[in-house]
Amino acid sequence: MLIRNLEEVPSFPYGNGAQKRVVIGPKQGAPNFVMRVFDVPPGGSSSHHAHDFEHEVFILQGEATAKSPKGDFPVKVNSSIFIPANEKHQLVNTGTETLRFLCMVPLHGEDTP
Amino acid sequence: MLIRNLEEVPSFPYGNGAQKRVVIGPKQGAPNFVMRVFDVPPGGSSSHHAHDFEHEVFILQGEATAKSPKGDFPVKVNSSIFIPANEKHQLVNTGTETLRFLCMVPLHGEDTP
Repeated sequence: MLIRNLEEVPSFPYGNGAQKRVVIGPKQGAPNFVMRVFDVPPGGSSSHHAHDFEHEVFILQGEATAKSPKGDFPVKVNSSIFIPANEKHQLVNTGTETLRFLCMVPLHGEDTP
Repeated sequence: MLIRNLEEVPSFPYGNGAQKRVVIGPKQGAPNFVMRVFDVPPGGSSSHHAHDFEHEVFILQGEATAKSPKGDFPVKVNSSIFIPANEKHQLVNTGTETLRFLCMVPLHGEDTP
């Protein structure tokens, strides 16, 4: 069992003002999927992109617009978002506090050195 | 993209007073891993068990003791816990509010009908 509090995990810049933490990844022994946490300041956003693996997202704090090919949808704390492989997506912080969300990917979707 | 807020997801009894929600699972199209959320009342606990797949846990609310073969460890909101396959484990709510945590498993670790 490995326990780490979020503040112990190093963060680094990612996207438009965002910060990324790899909370449980290959270095912690994760064999199948990776837990990352992103912090996005008000007005900031995650990347607007698509890739060949899915996301499973859970909003921990704040408010955002989730952009998809089918339109824009509001999300907030306790919202879950399943983004299938190859679907373009972006999360834009539309609130006044930091948007924090958990974003899980399969092992091959995590490329942090 | 599929968005569901936690309160929209049906919950059912699991373990010692706990409630379980399958937030993103096979029915939502998850191809590799499953997002579940557990609520455990004060004094309650998750199962004390081991199995052939890993857990990746993130504490969303409350305080708990994480029991492992190496001892008992305190965890709280924003703690992450990696539990390797075949390691015995349990989360016991030691606080005064509901313990809520996210618990990810590979697809074959989720057996909710």
